[in-house]
Amino acid sequence: MTDRIKKIAAKLDAFEADAMLVTDEINVGYLSGFTGDSSYLLIQPKRTSILTDGRYETQIAQECPSLSPAVRTSSKTMLQLVQEVLTGSGAKRIAIEAAHLDLHSFRQMAKSCPQQQWVETSGVVEACRMIKDTEEIATIRQSVRISEQTFRSVIAKLRGDWSEREIAYEMEATMRFLGADGVSFPPIVAAGASGALPHYRPSDRSLSGDATLLVDWGAFYQGYASDLTRTLHRPHASDAFCSAYQAVLAAQLAAIEAIRPGVDASAVDAAARETLAGAGLAEAFKHGLGHGIGLQIHESPRMSSISSETLQTGMVITVEPGVYFEGDFGIRIEDDVLVTENGHEVLSTLAKGLDDCRLML
Amino acid sequence: MTDRIKKIAAKLDAFEADAMLVTDEINVGYLSGFTGDSSYLLIQPKRTSILTDGRYETQIAQECPSLSPAVRTSSKTMLQLVQEVLTGSGAKRIAIEAAHLDLHSFRQMAKSCPQQQWVETSGVVEACRMIKDTEEIATIRQSVRISEQTFRSVIAKLRGDWSEREIAYEMEATMRFLGADGVSFPPIVAAGASGALPHYRPSDRSLSGDATLLVDWGAFYQGYASDLTRTLHRPHASDAFCSAYQAVLAAQLAAIEAIRPGVDASAVDAAARETLAGAGLAEAFKHGLGHGIGLQIHESPRMSSISSETLQTGMVITVEPGVYFEGDFGIRIEDDVLVTENGHEVLSTLAKGLDDCRLML
Repeated sequence: MTDRIKKIAAKLDAFEADAMLVTDEINVGYLSGFTGDSSYLLIQPKRTSILTDGRYETQIAQECPSLSPAVRTSSKTMLQLVQEVLTGSGAKRIAIEAAHLDLHSFRQMAKSCPQQQWVETSGVVEACRMIKDTEEIATIRQSVRISEQTFRSVIAKLRGDWSEREIAYEMEATMRFLGADGVSFPPIVAAGASGALPHYRPSDRSLSGDATLLVDWGAFYQGYASDLTRTLHRPHASDAFCSAYQAVLAAQLAAIEAIRPGVDASAVDAAARETLAGAGLAEAFKHGLGHGIGLQIHESPRMSSISSETLQTGMVITVEPGVYFEGDFGIRIEDDVLVTENGHEVLSTLAKGLDDCRLML
Repeated sequence: MTDRIKKIAAKLDAFEADAMLVTDEINVGYLSGFTGDSSYLLIQPKRTSILTDGRYETQIAQECPSLSPAVRTSSKTMLQLVQEVLTGSGAKRIAIEAAHLDLHSFRQMAKSCPQQQWVETSGVVEACRMIKDTEEIATIRQSVRISEQTFRSVIAKLRGDWSEREIAYEMEATMRFLGADGVSFPPIVAAGASGALPHYRPSDRSLSGDATLLVDWGAFYQGYASDLTRTLHRPHASDAFCSAYQAVLAAQLAAIEAIRPGVDASAVDAAARETLAGAGLAEAFKHGLGHGIGLQIHESPRMSSISSETLQTGMVITVEPGVYFEGDFGIRIEDDVLVTENGHEVLSTLAKGLDDCRLML
């Protein structure tokens, strides 16, 4: 068993469960080291089975030799395999990941396993995943570094006749070239008024006339995400843009300043929100402050006014306040921040002052 | 309301429901035309609401003007919005997509909406999506065309010192260049024995010594997937490879021949399986025959021995038998096939005879 699996096994008593069925693909990979999909773990105090299919038999022997494989043939469903393994395990009270099991599958499983009782849990593996270990932090640092180097490289060669799509594509290509597995999400490259759509997708429109350019991008590197945003401006950007930019930057810095272990995520969101409210921009900040990053681009803790989470050492979060003015422009500034024993460390280093973000074409 | 939404609304009586809550992102997009995420539809006989957040307000007004938007601010959860909209709607019996609502969210929703009763449905929108309309078929044709042109282009310039990763990357880049939104899945490029791992990921190893090369790739074009596989061989490929190749090809052709409306998906799978069994390769065929393609790379109908679906005109499916010999080689041949009134039409046209698949380096 891996150390991560042992941590979960140690929680079984608290759930009054004999075993835990892990159904989420990312959680399965985090706990076991398996890099395939469509597989479940059954964690018992002294034994962990991996439920999989014939495609992955060889890969599992290589990647997770300490687990007991239960392999289904193509004539058997995963549900039938779950039933077999549960019956063979002797486990009666099964903790399940209620947030990672759809209602339809749960009904089928409950019907086909009438001897078992179910303990519905939520966020158990995610609570482990929130706190990054030394190796994970080193990997995220490298992921951030690749994202930053990509931005510098692409901006340096940017021309006014490139379309948003071309810029996005060049960013992807550069991340790959620098060793990323791929993008952590399709880059958002939004010129001018398109920046007011927070989840805009790059178009074939070229930059030529636009005064502003919002770029939100990130890499996956060895499985770990980075996530950054910068908003650039050209000499003809309006005064309204420039003063809103300063307000967003002040809000971001205030939020970062508030980050330390023991502080509520909602209080960090509030620090940014209050700064923007002070600048009369409360209404223009239309989303939460940020989110955890790790094996997923969005993971716990959620950083928003309705988050119930408290920051802990080892969390890595994004801080990304933004303001949006329909038909005019959008501004977002985003960095990745590690919560440290003494406060925080901003992992990303790209300059973000108004003057630093001048776009020369 | 769109025609697609009307079809769902017309089914409410059969479910004895007043409304249907659509929670799956792909289904929401299919029914409404909305291209964002994190949004639900509440379909009532005469009105459909789209439940979303502030990021998408502008986009929804553009993409689905006929729907009633219900927009949550960042201080409200989706669950609170569902509760508000359900209460305001007057609907009491709510059909839900049980396969697209996790157990945890369902428990929370049921708790916060004690006035409502829930009708658990499964596969309702997917049953519509299985049958492609004329426009969808034209889009899939174009997606297939881009994938094919990509393969021809990359194979034509392939050199023996390229790594699997470089080939995969070049395929991605070419698909994008030819107008794809992106890949429908990361291309599988597996040289020699790596071909025996059906879901292998390309490595930095170059082809140089390997006698065989399995490539499984596809594009998303205007939202629609294509999915193809070819297995190439060099002059020093073994006799065992060549005879297994002929068996896989015969199995694929037998399966395609069996495709027509009214035939069970499992019978098509059986046609391939029996052909391979006749060649003594039953054990080496470790997965199902194929799957539907459309807005997702894997969708209904599943083409396998345990599928309960029957082919209908307008379905588009993959036919991809394969055999795998650990430590030696793998072979898979995959085409995309439209079920037509009179039988079938193979949408993909890349040559697949043993001689056609010689790799010249």
